[in-house]
Amino acid sequence: MNLNEFCEAFECAVENSGSIVILPHVSADGDALGSAIAMGYFLISKNKNARVVLEEPIPDKYNFLNNDDFIELYEPVRGCAADMIIALDTGDINRLGARKTCFPADNTWNIDHHKTNTGFAKNNYVDTLASSTGEIVFRIMEKMDYHICCRPAEALFTAISTDTGGLRYSNTTPDSMRICASLLETGIDIAEISHRAFDMMPYPKVLLQGAAIDNMRLYFNGDLAVITLKSKDYDFLNGKEEYFDGIVNLTVNTEGVRAGALIRETSDGTIKVNLRSAEDGIDVSSLAGANNGGGHVRAAGFTDASRSLEQVKEYIMGYFAEIFGKNEH
Amino acid sequence: MNLNEFCEAFECAVENSGSIVILPHVSADGDALGSAIAMGYFLISKNKNARVVLEEPIPDKYNFLNNDDFIELYEPVRGCAADMIIALDTGDINRLGARKTCFPADNTWNIDHHKTNTGFAKNNYVDTLASSTGEIVFRIMEKMDYHICCRPAEALFTAISTDTGGLRYSNTTPDSMRICASLLETGIDIAEISHRAFDMMPYPKVLLQGAAIDNMRLYFNGDLAVITLKSKDYDFLNGKEEYFDGIVNLTVNTEGVRAGALIRETSDGTIKVNLRSAEDGIDVSSLAGANNGGGHVRAAGFTDASRSLEQVKEYIMGYFAEIFGKNEH
Repeated sequence: MNLNEFCEAFECAVENSGSIVILPHVSADGDALGSAIAMGYFLISKNKNARVVLEEPIPDKYNFLNNDDFIELYEPVRGCAADMIIALDTGDINRLGARKTCFPADNTWNIDHHKTNTGFAKNNYVDTLASSTGEIVFRIMEKMDYHICCRPAEALFTAISTDTGGLRYSNTTPDSMRICASLLETGIDIAEISHRAFDMMPYPKVLLQGAAIDNMRLYFNGDLAVITLKSKDYDFLNGKEEYFDGIVNLTVNTEGVRAGALIRETSDGTIKVNLRSAEDGIDVSSLAGANNGGGHVRAAGFTDASRSLEQVKEYIMGYFAEIFGKNEH
Repeated sequence: MNLNEFCEAFECAVENSGSIVILPHVSADGDALGSAIAMGYFLISKNKNARVVLEEPIPDKYNFLNNDDFIELYEPVRGCAADMIIALDTGDINRLGARKTCFPADNTWNIDHHKTNTGFAKNNYVDTLASSTGEIVFRIMEKMDYHICCRPAEALFTAISTDTGGLRYSNTTPDSMRICASLLETGIDIAEISHRAFDMMPYPKVLLQGAAIDNMRLYFNGDLAVITLKSKDYDFLNGKEEYFDGIVNLTVNTEGVRAGALIRETSDGTIKVNLRSAEDGIDVSSLAGANNGGGHVRAAGFTDASRSLEQVKEYIMGYFAEIFGKNEH
């Protein structure tokens, strides 16, 4: 189904539906939230009873996207039945979490950009070349002559911007940039959105960065950076594990570092390892794979329940000693 | 002079010149360097003897732009005489540093986007609405039918991207994004360029961030964040003061913080203060102004040679106690 065909069918389904529920994936990120909220505004402009039903509350950093009118938290008692259901940015039905029980066989729609999308809905539009679901939603709205501005424009910019690392990742296409140019043209404050989406950090996350830097060491003439953290080093997080997102990047963001590892003790005593490589020639996924972990050439990880922090560190150092061809004394 | 008129005159001058020298401003940043290097490639494609003459060596982070063939460091003995001289991204002649001695009265060209540009050359093209000089250079080359790709495309992307904080600052226009889209279309690796320009930090700068976080404290229920650093806290910098660039932003990048200060002891014992405000209603330039400093509403600073670190901190705390309407005990 190409975009034109999809839009025709979609438009028809929207016209024939009174109530429409929009479902972003669990642990909704900027793309899932932004796409869903923009879609909400679009459907409301068509005089539909549209609701975005979330698995969890909107994360603080995306609170500026919140709209009490049509965004609600999923309640099993209430359910989320509707004439039409649209899943957004959701690769497979399990990514709907508890809300998958209200995904019926009929009049379900799935709009996504993930390569792994299983086509779990009755109607699927998956464009794996799009940087983000936000980009696809923009194209659908454009095709349907919706005048995008204001809040929906903010939501779509947030979607595209967060999934492309602020138009920086390699999934950014010339089209992603041109769509953002159109959104910027509507007068949205991209400096403020970018500040919230990229620069702003909760205080515990700032402290975690400090702890990570304090516990980062360079080895093999700076080729390898290793951060080790005992659970007492980050007790101020009060279990908010999501703050670890991106912390391992401190290693490969250090000039000259070619590979990095974050090795940390979790509260249950197991050791969690995040690995990064700064060049395609160094494949950290093989190290992860050899330890029942997984990932990609440049970003991988594994969990170790049998060895101590020190033992895991020694093991990793041994692995990289071979790669960098020298020993650290 | 509009762009068309400028390009006509510029093209004619280039045609009639054998040797052409390109001068970016002192302490050249990404925009100055990128614009100058792109211009170098352009002029060489026209079979000109073109040279980019720099005041200082290219900073490490921009080393990927380097091209030994036509980039050289200024040497007073050698000078930089040429048939035609082009200053880029340079607001006034003093920003050429020692190289201003080779800025003759005739056949000088000044291409810039700074509001404060003094029009110091014989021929000036200043577009203060452009996000960056890179954007203007792109337009000139387009107008002159230069097929931009590869290294010049990388240089122009670096120029535009760095002057807009990666297409995030409020000076970013829809056109800045569209130009970057065109540059991306030529196949350049924007992920790698962005990594180098924005994420990568020298190890001492990473350590400085750690020290700043360790010494940051929140006051007035998190409205104010203050970082205090004694000179011994950053002796690992070996005097590289430029690493302090952006460190004060850690304060206002902390969620909830409305104003921030970095107060540090310098090697000569004077106290340097950087101030940030996270909202237009809090004007830190007035605090800076009252202490013989300067700046803008949201970013300002001053130097204090008479008080100690502790005294300056107490003074600043007192100032903000008044703003936030409560005392910290």
